[in-house]
Amino acid sequence: MEGDGRAARWRRVLERRLPVLSWARRYDRMTALADFVAGITLGLTLVPQSIAYATLADLPVQYGLYSAFMGTILYTFLGTIKEVSIGPTSLMALLTLHTCHNLSVEYMQLLTFLSGIIVTLMGIFRLGILVELISAPVTSGFTSGTAMIIVVSQLKGLLGLSFVAESVSENLRLIAAKWEHVRRADCLLGAVCIAVLLTLRKIKDIKISPKNRRLRKTVWLVSISRNAIVVITASVIAYCLHPSGVGDAFNHISNTTDTVSTPRANATEPIFKLSGRVHGGLPTLSLPAFSVYEGNTTVNFGGMTAKLGSSIILVPIVMVLANVAIAKAFSGSRPMDAMQEMVALGVCNVCGALVSAMPTCGAFTRSAVSHSSGVRTPAAGLYSGAISLLALAFLTEYFYFIPKATLSAVLICAVVFMIDVQTALKLWRQSRPDLAVLVLTCVVSVLWSVEMAVLVGALANVALLLWACARPCTETTRLKVCGGECVQVRPHAALLYLNAERFASVVALAADAAPALPVLVDCSRLQLLDYSASQVVKRMNESFAAREQRLVFYNVTSELAKKLDNVVCVVHATSAEEAFAPILPSETSHPEVSPLLA
Amino acid sequence: MEGDGRAARWRRVLERRLPVLSWARRYDRMTALADFVAGITLGLTLVPQSIAYATLADLPVQYGLYSAFMGTILYTFLGTIKEVSIGPTSLMALLTLHTCHNLSVEYMQLLTFLSGIIVTLMGIFRLGILVELISAPVTSGFTSGTAMIIVVSQLKGLLGLSFVAESVSENLRLIAAKWEHVRRADCLLGAVCIAVLLTLRKIKDIKISPKNRRLRKTVWLVSISRNAIVVITASVIAYCLHPSGVGDAFNHISNTTDTVSTPRANATEPIFKLSGRVHGGLPTLSLPAFSVYEGNTTVNFGGMTAKLGSSIILVPIVMVLANVAIAKAFSGSRPMDAMQEMVALGVCNVCGALVSAMPTCGAFTRSAVSHSSGVRTPAAGLYSGAISLLALAFLTEYFYFIPKATLSAVLICAVVFMIDVQTALKLWRQSRPDLAVLVLTCVVSVLWSVEMAVLVGALANVALLLWACARPCTETTRLKVCGGECVQVRPHAALLYLNAERFASVVALAADAAPALPVLVDCSRLQLLDYSASQVVKRMNESFAAREQRLVFYNVTSELAKKLDNVVCVVHATSAEEAFAPILPSETSHPEVSPLLA
Repeated sequence: MEGDGRAARWRRVLERRLPVLSWARRYDRMTALADFVAGITLGLTLVPQSIAYATLADLPVQYGLYSAFMGTILYTFLGTIKEVSIGPTSLMALLTLHTCHNLSVEYMQLLTFLSGIIVTLMGIFRLGILVELISAPVTSGFTSGTAMIIVVSQLKGLLGLSFVAESVSENLRLIAAKWEHVRRADCLLGAVCIAVLLTLRKIKDIKISPKNRRLRKTVWLVSISRNAIVVITASVIAYCLHPSGVGDAFNHISNTTDTVSTPRANATEPIFKLSGRVHGGLPTLSLPAFSVYEGNTTVNFGGMTAKLGSSIILVPIVMVLANVAIAKAFSGSRPMDAMQEMVALGVCNVCGALVSAMPTCGAFTRSAVSHSSGVRTPAAGLYSGAISLLALAFLTEYFYFIPKATLSAVLICAVVFMIDVQTALKLWRQSRPDLAVLVLTCVVSVLWSVEMAVLVGALANVALLLWACARPCTETTRLKVCGGECVQVRPHAALLYLNAERFASVVALAADAAPALPVLVDCSRLQLLDYSASQVVKRMNESFAAREQRLVFYNVTSELAKKLDNVVCVVHATSAEEAFAPILPSETSHPEVSPLLA
Repeated sequence: MEGDGRAARWRRVLERRLPVLSWARRYDRMTALADFVAGITLGLTLVPQSIAYATLADLPVQYGLYSAFMGTILYTFLGTIKEVSIGPTSLMALLTLHTCHNLSVEYMQLLTFLSGIIVTLMGIFRLGILVELISAPVTSGFTSGTAMIIVVSQLKGLLGLSFVAESVSENLRLIAAKWEHVRRADCLLGAVCIAVLLTLRKIKDIKISPKNRRLRKTVWLVSISRNAIVVITASVIAYCLHPSGVGDAFNHISNTTDTVSTPRANATEPIFKLSGRVHGGLPTLSLPAFSVYEGNTTVNFGGMTAKLGSSIILVPIVMVLANVAIAKAFSGSRPMDAMQEMVALGVCNVCGALVSAMPTCGAFTRSAVSHSSGVRTPAAGLYSGAISLLALAFLTEYFYFIPKATLSAVLICAVVFMIDVQTALKLWRQSRPDLAVLVLTCVVSVLWSVEMAVLVGALANVALLLWACARPCTETTRLKVCGGECVQVRPHAALLYLNAERFASVVALAADAAPALPVLVDCSRLQLLDYSASQVVKRMNESFAAREQRLVFYNVTSELAKKLDNVVCVVHATSAEEAFAPILPSETSHPEVSPLLA
């Protein structure tokens, strides 16, 4: 029996750490079919997104796909939430750009590797609790801010401009400076793509009679795979319109040596800005480089980490933050295993680094696609991972023709709905301070940086909380009880160093107004009392003693009583009457009542 | 009548801003006598302390006295707390040393001036509220840490060593390095001074029969003026033992040009290290220099502030902090006018800068002396200020003979009792987390810096508070009410982004245990609910709806009800019975009871 118990316990631990074990046994054909459909749909979103995010991070396009398959596949075995798909995201792309801008790819790989290790350790040491410091308004402000940054950063693609810019202001400044280089063809293509994407997004809401099941299904499928449809269509058009002619297009690729197309003034310039040549084939499996040869010197591990700087800490934190926010959103009211989610995310990144992936985490857009595609288990990730691998193996030469304007349109349409106006409006009605935190987080992320925004937002939230704790929240009433009159004071939730002084002033005022009456403090709502507050109570007690006015605390829990011992007179009573009784004989102004109570 | 009311209002405002007006009318001979005695006693402490603190800040001795009179006199008119005396303090001396080490005196004067302006502005804009973030354990840890730093920094004086060191570790390292230069005479003098000071400190506790009033008074007076007695005696001894002979001693002074004595190997070297020549006379009244001529270039205002660095912000904050902590300690349970205290402190420093004072604030030791000397109004400051002025005008040439070991002994004996072991012991019994904050603050101040210690301590306290807020604190009970059974959940004080998820898990667990019963959430103790928590409640409600279990919130205040509107079912009831009634017909498993309630 004992052996059985131990075995069961071990199995539970194993199932918690390898969640695939808990659902694999119940995996049947219908579940597999649902996962297959969802997985393929997700894959068709994942591939163009990965390419776009690689561009956003200023990396060669293939790195986006390198980042796409490892996380999605591994999460099948380690993840607990069926909708989450670990892969490249806009936020990670921006942070990678911010960190590795002007550095070689080896740095990016090292960043992914170290971030993965840190996230795993954070999971093991249960530091996920830090994530609780991020409130809903901060998450909302952060999401909106990120969405705005991405929209601005993609404007250059829509306009057919080429430059690398990190901040919103730099993007806008460079667009203004290069305004004369704006290409009409790209603008037109971008506008059309956006229009098509928004329309296809909307059509799934069209009311179709439930009888016409096939039409319904088709419309839904078209709507959900709109990214893939738009990218493929635009690429075909670009291929057909290629100046070298349809036949020569592929020869053209093999002659082009630059990976990212640069403006060329010769006759064979394509009509749209294209993604350019993509290195095909699967990435080689290798540990990240712990030293690189740069110029004429070798930069060792210390030098590399120094160049990555604070991002080694920031990237994992933002990673966990974003991932837990998404996991929270999709786990519903089920309790979420934050530790397992963090370990899964960490392992996905450590293994991702082996195939030159950029830092990855769960993406809100993809999780939404999975969800609306009816995913049933994390196994869907297997299919979308497979699609990315297939794309890498067989489709990379076609990626040359993906117009940049189209990728920008896909990204903009994916994130523009993440600008969370609804929450802001709701908070305007419900809670202005929370709205202030939201706006602050959003503004800081746009004007400064997303990491700072989260920090500032979290601090602002703590400040709000301290402000709430510092409010006195004390009711004072004059009470007629059996045998006399008294002043009743009822402090609310907590007496802390933040509000104890104010509490003392309120009590002093109430006592001054009726110097002959005893003051009874009802602690029924009091749940916290710290040392500073107990010192204030002590001083209060001394001043009451000096002017011979009674001060009594009642309705005190045993925990509080320990803290108030030797500090003030505590009476074990649950009502003002009971508390009043023992002090009657000595203090009341109605001595004739006392025999009744004796 | 209206005019009268306005006049009265104006007088109240004026009395608040110039508190002297409120007590000057009641000032009689007895009060004046008490203040005179206390003021003289305070003055006899103030003069040697000022000299010692100037040495601590590595400034010429006269600057200590420059700092002593302006604050003490001005505070008479502006201050609200009779015990407080604004003047040089150990903490300000340490910060001045830290900031102006290797800089000329003009920088120190500018620092005082700017700090005064900032403190005044902080007072006017009511930023004193920031001081509330400093709890009793932080104050205690900070005080103990500062006391330890001062004791270590004064060891060199006791040992007859000369060097300038900022940190505890640097002090200890330099003492170890210079161990062979330790002077026996100084050690002996220091030890004797400490022994005498501690004995005189103790004698006031000796039980003397109340009849022997004169002896009692004498003993008390000797005990309280022990600093002055020891300094004067030691100086006389040093004067008599001076190698130049008693008659030549003063000639010797006029020939010495160095202000701080340096080890000299000639025959006329004094037996003890002496304070050295002090520039006598009153300081000239002048605005601080806003530019200085250094080397061959002029450093302008910007350059000077850049050299002062973050201290321009830190010094005023620490100033306010120390001052408010002392004011709090001596104001008892009377509410303290933090704004007026800050304005008074600021003005004292701005005016102090005009007479080349170093940054000043209230000193714990001096306030204690005032208190135990029976001070009655802030007017005592007038007398102690006058003593400092007299000392400057007529006594400076005698200051030459004050042995450094004696000053060190005075400082050490003043601060060693500020090491607050009692609070630590009390917290060990009452509240370990608070003790951790105390120890952390103390350790950081000794090993790093006092400013960082206050910051770290305040943050640790906030972290403790967040931790307390994050605890779920939810009671769940299964309740039999009229008409059926239900699960009652009672969240405590606050549902916040920090603990809402845990609350949801607790409720989910309780609900899972009895899936057929409705869940009633009693909000009688709930006082805070933020947007994040309302979102969690919304999700909770959705999952309850999905499994057709009832979830009802009752005992909800109108403020809470607004936030929970459209989020969850809120019933206006104050007891579980009442809350249960309306949901009975549809949900209860005892349908036979419903007619009774219909």
